[in-house]
Amino acid sequence: MSEVLKGIRIVLVETSHPGNIGGAARAMKTMGLSDLVLVNPKRYPDPQAQWRAAGAQDVLESARVCADLSEAVEGCHWVVGTSTRSRRIPWPVLSPEEVARQAVERVGSSIAILFGRETNGLSNEELQRCHCHLQIPAAPEYPSLNVAMAVQVVCYELHKLAGESGDAVGAWDRPTATVDQIDGLIEHLEEVLVASGFLDAANPGQTMTRLRRLLSRTEPDATEVQILRGILTQLHPSRPSGPGE
Amino acid sequence: MSEVLKGIRIVLVETSHPGNIGGAARAMKTMGLSDLVLVNPKRYPDPQAQWRAAGAQDVLESARVCADLSEAVEGCHWVVGTSTRSRRIPWPVLSPEEVARQAVERVGSSIAILFGRETNGLSNEELQRCHCHLQIPAAPEYPSLNVAMAVQVVCYELHKLAGESGDAVGAWDRPTATVDQIDGLIEHLEEVLVASGFLDAANPGQTMTRLRRLLSRTEPDATEVQILRGILTQLHPSRPSGPGE
Repeated sequence: MSEVLKGIRIVLVETSHPGNIGGAARAMKTMGLSDLVLVNPKRYPDPQAQWRAAGAQDVLESARVCADLSEAVEGCHWVVGTSTRSRRIPWPVLSPEEVARQAVERVGSSIAILFGRETNGLSNEELQRCHCHLQIPAAPEYPSLNVAMAVQVVCYELHKLAGESGDAVGAWDRPTATVDQIDGLIEHLEEVLVASGFLDAANPGQTMTRLRRLLSRTEPDATEVQILRGILTQLHPSRPSGPGE
Repeated sequence: MSEVLKGIRIVLVETSHPGNIGGAARAMKTMGLSDLVLVNPKRYPDPQAQWRAAGAQDVLESARVCADLSEAVEGCHWVVGTSTRSRRIPWPVLSPEEVARQAVERVGSSIAILFGRETNGLSNEELQRCHCHLQIPAAPEYPSLNVAMAVQVVCYELHKLAGESGDAVGAWDRPTATVDQIDGLIEHLEEVLVASGFLDAANPGQTMTRLRRLLSRTEPDATEVQILRGILTQLHPSRPSGPGE
């Protein structure tokens, strides 16, 4: 199995129809992917999922069910959220091809690609936890791909670039920080901003969203996160140390 | 609608499950195709087809049902047959990308792309009536895509090359900050770090280099630079305002 594809996790968020879960599992296996995570699926396990998975029962059976998105992306270095609509605060948007190209460059990292609900995709909050958004180019009159179909297209592009391609060399000298390390930094920053009066907790506006976007785009490594948290502590030492820190 | 896509007919040969017919109709519409032909479908029309078609009822309703393949490809200039297996008699084999490229070159011609039965694809006889074969690159252990999924992948490649994909993907909302704006931010940060005691001006080590690398990698836009400088001023208001600011 390709080193690149091995590092890619497909995360289905609150899927309603078990047939789509089975279809996604089959789509993954045909393209050489196997790491499937289900966040709070409506009906699962279910015979419909089994049926649509066809020869990909193994992918389905080893799927991990999580209660929330944080659990699903724990330990991941790069998180990509699929989206069809354009959002209020624009985020970096990549095509499936570009995501595949970056996945090849990031070989050795853990990558999560999120797919949202059948009816309304990923929420704004979920999308804002992603480093970038993935948009499948589609017909403007009806751009609404079924979720398992979207998984198929994305896995197809990943397989095309990462499948046979002798695994390329990673670009960055240190692994980037994991999403939970970034979350810790953002929480710390928010506390300092509120405590210092820069941010009105009752009326925060878009400042934290902008800062989250800036930080996740930056993809700091673990040392850089430490430096930034050191600065925050120095500038605003009153913060009580939280649990597990 | 793109001239190229208008000339492309999707032909499903003896499909067993009506859900796959609906899924294929939806896949087509999301990619801007609409000409669907069904050769001798097992169960059709059927509520399952309706349900899986979702917002592509129009494609489904205008689908033409034919008794045999000759009727389905009548009037076509170029016929492509999808196939997973390698055949006894070798035929020219194209990838979905190559088929899309040729479709663009053949604009004005009628093109048919055939998709076979769920269980065993197109027969040798059917494949031999095609000008070329289309193979979707897939994992050797399990290369068996669901038929509607295969339609999605092929239509996706056609749309990518031939469709007017509308809004460009990957656009960023504001221009990135200029180098002098970044320099101003870094100087400001350094002053705050020295004044607060985080940084020893006499012995600064690599901290500022790391922070500069982090910030320039980020490519912040002008608003983001303003937010960051606002935070610095708030956290350490003692800074005398420098010239030209």
